[in-house]
Amino acid sequence: MTDKSMNGVGQANIGLIGLGTMGAALALNIAEKGFPIAVWNRTTSVTQAFHAGAGALAARIVPTETLAALVSAIAAPRTIILMVPAGPAVDQQLEALAPYLGPDDLVVDAGNANFHDTNRRTAAGLPFRFVGIGVSGGEEGARHGPAIMVGGAAEDWQRLSPVLQAIAARTEDGTPCADWMGPAGAGHFVKAVHNGIEYADMQMIAETYGVMRDGMGLASEAIGQIFARWNEGTLRSYLVEISAAVALARDPVAGGPLLDMIVDAAGQKGTGRWTAIEAQNLAAPIPVIEAAVMARNVSARRAERAIGEALFGAAPQRLDGVLTADDLEQALIAGKILCYAQGFAMMTAAGAEFGWALDMPAIARVWRAGCIIRSAMLNDMANALSEDPARNLILAPFFADHLRHCLPALRRVVAAGAQNGLALPALASGLAWFDMMRTARGTANMIQGQRDYFGLHGFQRLDGIDRPHGPWAAGASA
Amino acid sequence: MTDKSMNGVGQANIGLIGLGTMGAALALNIAEKGFPIAVWNRTTSVTQAFHAGAGALAARIVPTETLAALVSAIAAPRTIILMVPAGPAVDQQLEALAPYLGPDDLVVDAGNANFHDTNRRTAAGLPFRFVGIGVSGGEEGARHGPAIMVGGAAEDWQRLSPVLQAIAARTEDGTPCADWMGPAGAGHFVKAVHNGIEYADMQMIAETYGVMRDGMGLASEAIGQIFARWNEGTLRSYLVEISAAVALARDPVAGGPLLDMIVDAAGQKGTGRWTAIEAQNLAAPIPVIEAAVMARNVSARRAERAIGEALFGAAPQRLDGVLTADDLEQALIAGKILCYAQGFAMMTAAGAEFGWALDMPAIARVWRAGCIIRSAMLNDMANALSEDPARNLILAPFFADHLRHCLPALRRVVAAGAQNGLALPALASGLAWFDMMRTARGTANMIQGQRDYFGLHGFQRLDGIDRPHGPWAAGASA
Repeated sequence: MTDKSMNGVGQANIGLIGLGTMGAALALNIAEKGFPIAVWNRTTSVTQAFHAGAGALAARIVPTETLAALVSAIAAPRTIILMVPAGPAVDQQLEALAPYLGPDDLVVDAGNANFHDTNRRTAAGLPFRFVGIGVSGGEEGARHGPAIMVGGAAEDWQRLSPVLQAIAARTEDGTPCADWMGPAGAGHFVKAVHNGIEYADMQMIAETYGVMRDGMGLASEAIGQIFARWNEGTLRSYLVEISAAVALARDPVAGGPLLDMIVDAAGQKGTGRWTAIEAQNLAAPIPVIEAAVMARNVSARRAERAIGEALFGAAPQRLDGVLTADDLEQALIAGKILCYAQGFAMMTAAGAEFGWALDMPAIARVWRAGCIIRSAMLNDMANALSEDPARNLILAPFFADHLRHCLPALRRVVAAGAQNGLALPALASGLAWFDMMRTARGTANMIQGQRDYFGLHGFQRLDGIDRPHGPWAAGASA
Repeated sequence: MTDKSMNGVGQANIGLIGLGTMGAALALNIAEKGFPIAVWNRTTSVTQAFHAGAGALAARIVPTETLAALVSAIAAPRTIILMVPAGPAVDQQLEALAPYLGPDDLVVDAGNANFHDTNRRTAAGLPFRFVGIGVSGGEEGARHGPAIMVGGAAEDWQRLSPVLQAIAARTEDGTPCADWMGPAGAGHFVKAVHNGIEYADMQMIAETYGVMRDGMGLASEAIGQIFARWNEGTLRSYLVEISAAVALARDPVAGGPLLDMIVDAAGQKGTGRWTAIEAQNLAAPIPVIEAAVMARNVSARRAERAIGEALFGAAPQRLDGVLTADDLEQALIAGKILCYAQGFAMMTAAGAEFGWALDMPAIARVWRAGCIIRSAMLNDMANALSEDPARNLILAPFFADHLRHCLPALRRVVAAGAQNGLALPALASGLAWFDMMRTARGTANMIQGQRDYFGLHGFQRLDGIDRPHGPWAAGASA
């Protein structure tokens, strides 16, 4: 509870527009942490129902029926959080607010904006201050502690930090998971990369599940116990924890393992795809995330896959004696390091492209609680990034040591998958990327030779001599 | 030579705007095939120099100094080919032409337009007819026989086909490689997919090169001889042919193999990236192309790769006795089938998305000569697509048989690469995709379980019962 939240009894210092699932949860969270908050929704009955259902927190909530009333209920300088659908609705709301706000007032877009839109809005010269924040953790997170990734001017982050740090998730050592990522759209950008990594983490877990199920013949319950065991070690994380719960859950209808009854076609809301597109624009290699998006797309083609199995035979031979669960644990650790290394490198590329001073250690720290990809390993990543934020994570001594230890298992797992027909697209992509990144002399000289042969695109020579064409080029030979 | 090209002696039936490298080559090609052609370039001296350098063909070329003069030099109904830089220059030229042309005149954008732009221009209600064509084969192709992919109204293709088929490349049996792909931007779209496949073909060749060089210890000359041998068999193709030439070329400066002197950092003009982005938009899995783009991006990071090698040690153990050149040949055949299967499936997805009746066998046929990815295998692909254009190529009996034969080698190669530190991103991605496509029961049930756990996204059940949440959902259990 800050001074600001206490002054002007009955008058709030903060407002919130948009009382859908996420907005309502966030407003209750803010009120619960002691901040009086004024709220407004386009439909007044929604506002009234929200206030009526707020219980003891209703005393700290000021429901308003017009935008003018909302603004009047907040003491200047005002902070107003927008939680409306991403896209045109945000622009319309910003336009509607313009007549009411002054240059010291601050509007915070807390929705799932595309960071390009946040950049555009920041550059548009709005008549008030503007910040874009990524809020992760779903309704539960918004209500009880999300991870919050803030993009905008550093002084606006200073102003927002008391309330955002109060409502954010906290790590085991009590650090709030709300922090400044960088200017303009940086907060929404980091949130997008978070979502891409989420896809990849989930896919790699699913791949180890597949090896245990189809390669080792393990039942879901045994697999769930293995995930639970992994969650005690290096892999400790929310996603491994809930994978154990999913594998162990019983089907209330048929009585068997629920996992065995779930259709194997993954949905998506498109954020992984969006990250993959952005990485292409940045020429940033994120093959593990790309493989995860690919796998979801292929999973949806169930009819084709059934024809494929009928034509080529059901997959694998048993891998008993070839791989152990420990191999899979080590492979997953390696895959996870490789995937995060790619994600952080993509953010480094974005920082260079957009002129953002992204705070890499802060990004790793802010993901440690509240969000879907929270994990023990992020502490070590924050430390490694503190040493040298621009260095690829695989080149940091801590993770290089880790990888030296885990890579033999990843190699065994990927090789066994390839030999035995078990699809491991994300783990295999991660390994191939690593092997490119640890090879000083690659094979792109062949590609450059081809390109010069058919298109006279030219190549550089290792000896630095300026002779960019092969003998196939007219006039190239002496 | 058609009737149309002969009527109105001294007056052309076709015009061309833009006498850069590609436009000049195309104009000479058209004139050489007997079609009188009027040409115009924004800079008159360029037009004059082009005409002066046209030799005997100058008699069939009408140089003009203004747009009005160009249009007057062409008998109605006019056909005018634009070969100006893709983007705003095309829109400006279309606008400039509008006052001079009537509804029966036809403008053909032969540049490298993004197909979204071609769609937009087609829908814009221009006061003349409009067609977009993809022209592949570089300057050499444009001059002596490109592959031409036509998008637009079928009747416009009928009108254009005499000249386009006359100037196009021809297959060994004399079939011209110019054909109608589908409506609107379909021609430019097919050209983009062609370029993505080109990236993938090149990358897979480079990967087999890497295994021979680093895994088998073969010298460039021996590798060149192996590529030359492959070019006599199933892999017969322009890219394998020139890979042999590249590997066999001597360095005129230092005297060794030229390939050993070329820097291993691949350039790109971005068309592979663009295909990858479009595939993401279509939710179409093209992992081999994605891996090829990724590999080019990683190849550019030479300094990081050198640090990686210093940290993790130079890659591989020798693979003598593990793999043979025949294994690599079979693996490359399999990889190529998988990659093209993905590319054609992406075009099927585009057809559905954009409402295009894409002519899949015609696409395979048009790529058989003139373009970079021309290969013997495209004949078989055209045949398989004629049986069922929407069926994935791997499910066509001919290619399923092929794959059954080649897959064991692909598995051995990918597994050996994973075990021994040789990066095979494209081949490994292709195999993982195949193993997903031949697995009726995948692993996305785990992903759906996770998504429901943390976000209540819901799942379907195999038994069809409508109970979309696990016991973790509040109120989900009975």
